[in-house]
This record gives sequence, C-alpha cells and structure tokens, in this order.
Amino acid sequence: MHWPSVCLPFPVTLRALESAEHFTAPASDGRVRVVVEHVAPEVDCGRFAAKRVLGDLFVVEADVFADGHDEIAAALVYRHESEPEWRRTEMRLVANDRWRGEFPLSRLGRYLYTVEGWIEPFETWRRDLVRRIAAQQDMGVDFEIGASLIDDAAASASDADAPTLREWSSKVRNEANQDTRRELATDEGLAALVRRNRPQSFAGRYGRELWVVVDRQKARFSTWYELFPRSCSREPGRHGTFRDCEEWLPYVATMGFDVLYLPPIHPIGRTFRKGKNNSTEPAPDDAGSPWAIGSEAGGHTSVHPDLGTLDDFDRLLARAAEYGIEIALDVAFQCTPDHPYVHEHPEWFRRRPDGTIQYAENPPKKYQDIFPLDFETQNWQELWEELRRVLFFWVGRGVRIFRVDNPHTKAFAFWEWVIGEVKTSYPEALFLAEAFTRPSVMYRLAKLGFSQSYTYFTWRNTREELTGYFRELIQSGSREYFRPNLWPNTPDILPEYLQTGGRAAFMVRLVLAATLSGNYGIYGPAFELCENAPRESGSEEYLNSEKYEVKHRDLNSPGSLKDFIARVNRIRRENAALQGGASLRFHETDNPLVICYSQATADLSNVLFMIVNLDAFHAQRGWVTLDLAGMSIPEGHATQAHDLLGAGRYLWHGKKVFFELSPESLPAHIIRLRRWVRTERQFDYYL
Amino acid sequence: MHWPSVCLPFPVTLRALESAEHFTAPASDGRVRVVVEHVAPEVDCGRFAAKRVLGDLFVVEADVFADGHDEIAAALVYRHESEPEWRRTEMRLVANDRWRGEFPLSRLGRYLYTVEGWIEPFETWRRDLVRRIAAQQDMGVDFEIGASLIDDAAASASDADAPTLREWSSKVRNEANQDTRRELATDEGLAALVRRNRPQSFAGRYGRELWVVVDRQKARFSTWYELFPRSCSREPGRHGTFRDCEEWLPYVATMGFDVLYLPPIHPIGRTFRKGKNNSTEPAPDDAGSPWAIGSEAGGHTSVHPDLGTLDDFDRLLARAAEYGIEIALDVAFQCTPDHPYVHEHPEWFRRRPDGTIQYAENPPKKYQDIFPLDFETQNWQELWEELRRVLFFWVGRGVRIFRVDNPHTKAFAFWEWVIGEVKTSYPEALFLAEAFTRPSVMYRLAKLGFSQSYTYFTWRNTREELTGYFRELIQSGSREYFRPNLWPNTPDILPEYLQTGGRAAFMVRLVLAATLSGNYGIYGPAFELCENAPRESGSEEYLNSEKYEVKHRDLNSPGSLKDFIARVNRIRRENAALQGGASLRFHETDNPLVICYSQATADLSNVLFMIVNLDAFHAQRGWVTLDLAGMSIPEGHATQAHDLLGAGRYLWHGKKVFFELSPESLPAHIIRLRRWVRTERQFDYYL
Repeated sequence: MHWPSVCLPFPVTLRALESAEHFTAPASDGRVRVVVEHVAPEVDCGRFAAKRVLGDLFVVEADVFADGHDEIAAALVYRHESEPEWRRTEMRLVANDRWRGEFPLSRLGRYLYTVEGWIEPFETWRRDLVRRIAAQQDMGVDFEIGASLIDDAAASASDADAPTLREWSSKVRNEANQDTRRELATDEGLAALVRRNRPQSFAGRYGRELWVVVDRQKARFSTWYELFPRSCSREPGRHGTFRDCEEWLPYVATMGFDVLYLPPIHPIGRTFRKGKNNSTEPAPDDAGSPWAIGSEAGGHTSVHPDLGTLDDFDRLLARAAEYGIEIALDVAFQCTPDHPYVHEHPEWFRRRPDGTIQYAENPPKKYQDIFPLDFETQNWQELWEELRRVLFFWVGRGVRIFRVDNPHTKAFAFWEWVIGEVKTSYPEALFLAEAFTRPSVMYRLAKLGFSQSYTYFTWRNTREELTGYFRELIQSGSREYFRPNLWPNTPDILPEYLQTGGRAAFMVRLVLAATLSGNYGIYGPAFELCENAPRESGSEEYLNSEKYEVKHRDLNSPGSLKDFIARVNRIRRENAALQGGASLRFHETDNPLVICYSQATADLSNVLFMIVNLDAFHAQRGWVTLDLAGMSIPEGHATQAHDLLGAGRYLWHGKKVFFELSPESLPAHIIRLRRWVRTERQFDYYL
Repeated sequence: MHWPSVCLPFPVTLRALESAEHFTAPASDGRVRVVVEHVAPEVDCGRFAAKRVLGDLFVVEADVFADGHDEIAAALVYRHESEPEWRRTEMRLVANDRWRGEFPLSRLGRYLYTVEGWIEPFETWRRDLVRRIAAQQDMGVDFEIGASLIDDAAASASDADAPTLREWSSKVRNEANQDTRRELATDEGLAALVRRNRPQSFAGRYGRELWVVVDRQKARFSTWYELFPRSCSREPGRHGTFRDCEEWLPYVATMGFDVLYLPPIHPIGRTFRKGKNNSTEPAPDDAGSPWAIGSEAGGHTSVHPDLGTLDDFDRLLARAAEYGIEIALDVAFQCTPDHPYVHEHPEWFRRRPDGTIQYAENPPKKYQDIFPLDFETQNWQELWEELRRVLFFWVGRGVRIFRVDNPHTKAFAFWEWVIGEVKTSYPEALFLAEAFTRPSVMYRLAKLGFSQSYTYFTWRNTREELTGYFRELIQSGSREYFRPNLWPNTPDILPEYLQTGGRAAFMVRLVLAATLSGNYGIYGPAFELCENAPRESGSEEYLNSEKYEVKHRDLNSPGSLKDFIARVNRIRRENAALQGGASLRFHETDNPLVICYSQATADLSNVLFMIVNLDAFHAQRGWVTLDLAGMSIPEGHATQAHDLLGAGRYLWHGKKVFFELSPESLPAHIIRLRRWVRTERQFDYYL
C-alpha cells in the first residue's frame, strides 16, 4: 500500500514509487480538500516572473474549489523577497470558482506569491442555518454544532478575542428565546470574529510559488532620444565631446525626452575599421563605428579619448539629471581585434585552425572588424564575471539604464544571470533589448529579465499590420512580461515609409510610437530633421550614415519637428492613459487608410482616442465607430471631445464620429474625452 | 559571486541565494544555449497527464531555439513507465521555432516524455559552406574546420562508423580537386553520418518531464446501456435477478451496445428506506433505491440477495463477454444507517453533538437514508484503504469499468490516489465520472484520472447551445484529458425536450449523442420505449421512477426505437470518424432549427456530415454551407453523398447543400462522403 504525496505532480510520485522508502505522505495530506488551479499571472509555469511597476496594485486570480458543497475561502499569500515572513490577504469570489485578490507593490525588486484555499465550516453552518430558519425546521442540534465551531475558534483565538468568542458560543448554546437565538447565531459580527480566529486546517496551497518583478515606473513610461555624442560639436568638422553633449541637454529636455541614449562611448578599433558608408577602405581620418569597441586606449570600461574623460562623462550624467534626463548606455558585448580582451583573454574567442580568431560572419558576409565572444568557451565563468564587472563599473558611476545591442546573439543563460545580478543590487536598473529577431527569441529575452524590448513596430505601417501586431502584444500572455519600446527609426533602420512620405510620414510615425506604447524613442536629430535619404534604393541604411562618420546639423532648420515632438511628449506627460499602464483598444474605421485606437485608464478618468491618417500623401475622411461598450463607457451621452494635438473641441454624440485629416496640416487627432456634457438631469436641483 | 543554476526556476534560485553553499552550478550549465519552451500537450504544467488510447501516434510539439544563428536539432525523449531507459526520436521544424515529433503508444499505462534541443555545429558549417560556395569565396580554412568537426564525430562514433568518418575527414582536408572537395564536403550521406555520431554536448532539456496515460480504445469509443437488473424479470411483479439479466444480453447486443451499466447491485438499507416516487412512507414491499447501499446482508462487496449470488454475478459477466458486452458497475461510496461500516467504523462518519451520525443534507432537504463518508476523518488512511479494497474486490472478479456516482462529493485527493492504484495494476480499467457540477470541478475530476465524464449535453438542445458547448470541449485545453460521455437521459434526468417532443425527440437526441462523441449511453428501456412522463410538471424526475421500484416493460411495443438505435450503433461501428478520435467541426445552416456538423478521420478516409432537425414538431428545410476548406477538402469536386441513416444517395457539388427533414420520418441525415465523382481527368488515360 502506497500513500500518495497528493500535492506533487506525477513524475515525483512515480520516482517515489520506485523508491518506496521516501513515500510517506504527511498525515494531514489526504484531508486537504481544497485545490488551487490556474493562478494568473503565471509565466511559463512560474519559470519566469510577471512584471509590474512600483505603486501598482498587483491583481492575482485563481480557480479555488473543493469537493462537495462546503463554503470555502481563499487567500493570496505573498512576501517581498527581502522579507522572511509571508503576508496574507483574503481573496473574493468573482464567478464560477474564480477568486481574485490583490496587494500593493510598494517596493522595488521581487515579490513571491501563491494562493491558498480552505474549507470554512462555520460559514457553511451559517449558510445552512439560514436555509433551515427559512424552512422553519427544528434546529436544536444545529445550534449546538455552531456553538462548538465557535468554541474551536475561541481555542485558537487571540487573548483579545477568545473571551468574546466564548461568550458568543454560550449564548448560541443557551439562549432560551428562539428568535434571539437565531439572530445571535447568524450575526455578521460573530461571523467576522470567527473568520478572524478560526483554526485553519487542511489548507490547500497552489503547487508553485510565483513571482513578480517590480520595476520603477520608467520601465513602463519612458521617452528616449538617441544621440551620437561625437556629433554634438557646434563647430563643423570637430569631433564632439561629452562637454559638447551637455549643450544639447536643454534642446533634448525641451522636446520632452527623459532618456538620452548614447551609442557606445568606448575606444574604437583601428584594425579593419570601416570608412564612410560602411566602406572597407577607410580614409585615415574616418571615425569608425562606435560599435567596433576596443583599442589600445581600452575596452568596455574606457571612454573614447576624443569624447573626453570618465570625469567628463560623470559630469554629463549629473548635468542631465538636472534636466530630468537619464543617460542610457549601449551594451555591445563584442570586440575589435584591437580590444584588450583579445590579447589578455584569447581563450574567450573562437580560434580557427589557422590560429586566427574567428571574426563575425553571416556567410557570405564577413565582419572582420568584429570578434564575437565565445559563450561556449571552457572559461565561460571568467567571461561572465568580466562582463558582469563591466556592467557594475557603469552602474557604479550612476548609469541605471542600458540598451543592449543584439542580445539574441549571446547566451540566454548569461542574460538571465547578469541582469539578475545587477537587479539584485540595483533593482531600479533597466535593460532595453535590441533584438530584431524571431518572436520566440524576443519574448524569451523579455522573460529572462529585459525590462523593455524593441519591436516590429518599425516595419508595421498599415492599419491591418498595426492592429494585428498590437492585438498580439496586448492579448497574448506576453503582456505580462514584454514591454514594447517603439522606434520609428534607428541609426540602422530608415524605413521605406519615412524615405518616401516626407514630413507628414515622420509626424504619423511619431504619433503612433508615442501613443501606442508607454515607451518609445527616436534616433535624433535625424528624425526631427526628417532625414530620409537611403544609401541606395531598396536599402534601409541611411546615406552617409552617422554610424561611420561624425555629423554636423542645423537644429533650427525650418522643417524641424522639434515643436511638434515637444507637443506630443507634453500630451504624454499630462495624460496617464499614455503612460503604459492603460488598456489599448482598436476601433473600426470605414476608411482603411485611417487607424483609430483608444487608451484609457482603468477608472476612465483619462480616456484618449487617437485617429491617425496613415496616408502621408492625401487627405482622408470617413467615420469611426467607437467601441464604447467594450470600454465600459455608457453610450448615448454627449461628450466634449478635445483634440490635444490640434486644439479643436468637438461635441461627440453616439458611437459614430466623423473625421477628416490632411497630411499638409496635422495627420492625427489625439482626442481627450473631457466629460459628459451636462443635461438638465445632472443639474443639482433636477430631482 | 553567485553562479546560477540556470535551468531552475527563480524560486529555487532565490532559495539558493539564501543558502549560498548549495549554489554551485554544474560546470557545463552556462554553455547550454538551446532552450525548450511551450511543450504540448502539457496539462497544468505537467501536474496532470494527457490522455490517449492504445495505438495512437502521440504527437508532441515544442518551441526549441538558441541564441545566434546556429543550426539546431531537437529530440522527443520518452519512455514507458515500466522501461528504465529513455528512447529518443528526432523532431522536425514545423515553422517559426516550432518543432514536432511523435512516437507510437504501443502499451497501456503511462509514458513519460520531454524534449531536448542542441546546437548542430556541423550542420551550421555545412549551411555556411554552401553559401560560401555560391559566393565563390576562398574556403581553405573552412574545409579544415569541417574536417575537424568530422573528426569530433569520429571520436565519439561507433566502431562501425568511426573509420568511415575518418576517411571522410581526410578527404575533406586533403582533396586537391576543389570541385570534388566541395561535393564531398556537402555530401548528404556524410551529413547523416555525422548527425548519427556527433558528440552531443550542452543539450538543453525542457524543465519538466510530462506524461500521457494510455487507455484501451474503449476509453474513447464505447456505447453504454444502463439497466436495472431488478427489472429484468419476465414475470410482472417478480424481482429480477442476474440470471434474468442474462436473458437481456441478446437484446442489448442486437441494439449494438458494448457496455452494460448496472446501478448498484448491493444490499439496500431498511432504515429510512424511500418508497415509490421517493416517498418517505414506503410500503413494506417497496424495493428501495439501489443507491441506498448497505444492510445486514452486507455492503459494497456484497450483492443484493434478491439479485442472486456473487457466482451468479460472475456468470453474468462471462455471458455478457460472449456477446461482446462488458459489465460496468456503479461505485457509490455512501452508506445507509444499516451498512456494516456504520457499526464497524463509526469513526468514518461525522458525528453530531447529540451522538447521532450526520446524514446527507442539502438544507433544508434531508436525506436521512444516506450517511456520507467523512473524508476529513482522522482515520482517513484506513477509510481510503477500505474503499481501495472495494474496487479491487470487483476488479478481482473481472469488472474493468466503473461508473462513479457523484465523485465530486468525495475528496479529490482520494480519487487521484485510488484510480492510480487500480490503473497501476490494471491499466485497462476505466472510470466514468458522474459529476453534474461546475466546469472546474468536472475538469478537475477528469484530470485526476477519470477516463470519461458525464457532460452538460443532457441540457443542451438548441443549435447555439450545442455548438457553444462542443466548441468549448474541443477547442479548450480540456480535450487533452476530458472525454465526454453523452447521455440523453438517466434515471435521474428526463429532460424537458424528451418530455414534450415525442418519439422524434428521442431520435434527435440519440443521433446527437451517438455522433457528437465517441462515448454515449442511454438509460433503457425507458429510452427506447420513449417513456416521457415526469413526476410532475416542471420536474425532470420520471413518474414512478425506476430508482424506487421494480419495473416491468414490453420490449416489443410497436413504438420502440430499438431498430433505429441498432442502425445508429451499426453506423458508429462501421465508421471510424464516429469512434472518438476524429475532428468535430460545425457547419453553417441558414435555418437555426437545424444543426450540421462533421466528423472526419485525419486522413479523410472517413468523412461524415450529420444534419439534424432539432425541431421535433415540424419539418425543416434550408441550406448548409459546408466548411470544406476548414476540413482540407478540396472544393469544386462533385461527391457521392450517402445517407447511412435514410439510405438515400445524393450528388453533392460545391459548398451549398439543400436539406429537408421531417420529424415524422427521419429527423436526421448521417451522410458519408463516398468518393469524389470521377471526371475525365481521373480517367487513367487522360494524361
């Protein structure tokens, strides 16, 4: 005869059957009658964490039920990783065995949580008593049963409650007046007192402890500006410095950006350096690509001598902070042949049979200026430690945001470990994954710990493409851990839509990026100056790409979108619905060239409708059918609709809304529903 | 510095962090670059098993991928629980990192399975070489790299393959003619040889071992007839016996049933015995309810003296087998006050403060003839052992199918354990759960081990109700473990539809039950004789219910559906599509009173369309739009459509099909697509 370990999954049981001596169930197990299933959120069976931000109320649901007809109760059990003791909060029955509870996320870092359920004999008794009273049954024994349940509670009660409970049980047992006795027995206060003190036996607990990572709010709401510091000089022809970069802070802040992301700031290799337009025959004064990291001047913890010193960098960090701007650094774990690692740790690279080190390749393409690190090296532990040291070096100087270059070409296990290491010490640290690759890989990186992710938004232009992609992002389980960061352009990608659509195309893509997600960014000043010349037809590379040369630009050129961008970013700051925690919903338009979607806070205190003309060449008009029912907004009331972008005000009534948008003026509306227009019924004295 | 245990979920890591001495990763872990995710089927994170039947090919899918651009491979790793060694079968890439593999389920019992993935350096090298050849690059070093990969394979190769591999590597390394060398290096045979012998390092394995329970085919395809043996006597007024029951076997077999399910056959209690029509004032000769188990004559391992002896029962079992019929017993774990357990084990029942035993209640209703077993008893282990003994007693006499009465009012943990115990010794045993309760409870019981389940079919009558419910059953994850067994009636339930619809209603419900699921059953002869009188208006109880009295019926009454039932069951036997493993699909009808659905085997060798008039009162006509594309049936061919029920033959062309069904004749079509009608193009000499 084998006794089961009833809470364990079968393979454990099977192993136990094979070695029967381990197989003695705790004496109480068989009497656990409540089960907990389908806890949500749960990412890959608890293998990974859900993600939230500080201040969120964390809502957990679970199916909790028992055999038979007993009343049950359920609790959400949780603790911050730093707390030894579990806390508990009661859950409520929503419907059909589904229970819901929540707790506030008041600290950064990791919370653990799980769900418990148990039988409530007193509540069961009380429910049945009410039915017996209604049926006018004789209840002598039933009162006695209830009284002993109250006695049980008294026995395990606090010193404060025990005497009160004993008094209650005596009253339920002895009260002579049957009317009074019925009232006493079904008293709400008594029920609460028993609930608070009942002995909790045979509680069923969910088989896993799950976890949620709490980031700071910037994980969900951030506005990025990518800038090459070497192009920051005011004098044409001079290599920009960190000091020059400081001069740009007012410009960046005025546009409303709060993250200034710098491509790699490290020494650039000489061997196989690329010239302008990715030429393999560089001129002697060509600056090279910042992603070709490492020279005799140092590697990943050094700064390029032409940019200045580490002290200058520290100063830039401090000055940026004064403008409310954080510096994000680029983490590109790869080396040029001149990187110190190549000489100091040749074992970290793959060696070819001819003794040379394997450069990066995508056959037949060769990237001879780049040596990838070999994550299958025998010395992987030393390699991991060194890369950890690099991150801690910059964290130690105050950097808290990292944009990681091509994380999908480094081992998954490394990222999980190193991000965990940084966040254990600095839970406010954020990591943006630049992985333009297959969905499963992008999602995996997000699960491993990346706080934000580049997306396919860059190539989604039509209504169908945008709707399909964002529906996938918000409806699939990935919303628990994958935070999109939308980029209309990057130094690598000048999308065709921007190449051909002129200034209106830039406005369209900016509005989409800024209102479809709490996180977005642009590569500037190429973006606001509407630079749109590709290296060649069919290419998404910029002509004279800043990746390979120092640029100098006139920020005050008349076509600049800087004021438009400032306006859009101000709208983001002033409207909680655009700050990443809101619910995105698409609405039907009868014109396929126009997209309409809404963002609304849970309490509907901030509701925005975006209507965007995706045709950068022609005016478009038509009708939107607002899905008010889906948003739980009552229909049939007139509302004041305020276009925060164009400043117009409209009266909306019903679900059908007319629009007309011209690329020559403004290709988009960002409409805030101000309030229901009053009728006489809202007038104070109407009733 | 902490080293990660990279394959373990976070809570383990966190605990490890707290006690750092346990925290040393195996030296190879950090180099495991392939990950395995989202293995399917997987029920509740591997807590429960998927279910299949003997002979099935078990198909497993998983997301398998690595960082970077290396070629990978994946294997499905599995073993029958009785085998110590794991077997392996290679998986194929389906699309987008999704891999698929399968293995045959050739034994009853439990199989364990999981998925592994690993990098294929030689395949990567070969892919790149092809690209280099196309680009006419110099490849001297590359051949050398390939040769050493072949050497690696040779080093870990079988004695048979090692010399061949060494020959290959020498050729790839030294062949002077470059054309020949390229051909050699990319040779398919070489690639297969390397694949077979490569050293497999750093394989990533899915974090869990999953399991599938293999039942015999009857778990999925069974046809049940419920019969009260006490009503089997040919003489009116005499209590039927097992011997009388034997006389019915030809009748039951002719109708095509293969499971004969007997309500409890045990001694019936006297105390608080219920009289006819559930009266609390029984006449002295009232037979009582078979579910009121236990008297001085014995309990759950005894048979009612009026039915005969255990030997008679054994004989019935053997006679039934001769007709291809299995006897299913009713397992109702509850006792009358007269049951031997009450005296021998009073501690298995809940005691009230007045010293009496707690009877069953659903306040204000009282069931004083029933004492429920107390699964929270301190002596739960003895109780479980005794109930296990009961099941093994009947299994020992040859019973292999149990219909379990109200399993949802007994502890879940008990069922998981006791079904596991029986199936470990008798993997051919089947359990049908009679739990008409909330969905989460019904699904839980199925997951715990019940082979088949009663469903809400009994109350689903309209097209929308049927479509909605069966879509839920086939589209939700429950299809992996929940096998519906459809009952148009039971001794407890005479649905309103049958009460009012006359003979046609019985035909409609029979066709639906028999063609919507591989498992169905009827409570006879009440069903085939179209008994439809309720105890009172609004009640679903039968008038003069057989639960409380012995019945005598004329099986040859002219209205009997026995021939109709025999025809439907023959169609089920002759058509694999109706045997539970096929894919159910609903098709549009323009008449809401008519439902159309199909069942098709995976290879489309057996395709049936059911068209059922749900209106038992009027003829209905209209058009079906067949979803041929959804079934992967090419459109535009004419097909011969053969009505197996009405025997008509039609020529179908295109997706639109006309129907007209009259309740007076036949309310349903069961149409088999015979074959595509030939055209000249199929004529042998056309081309």
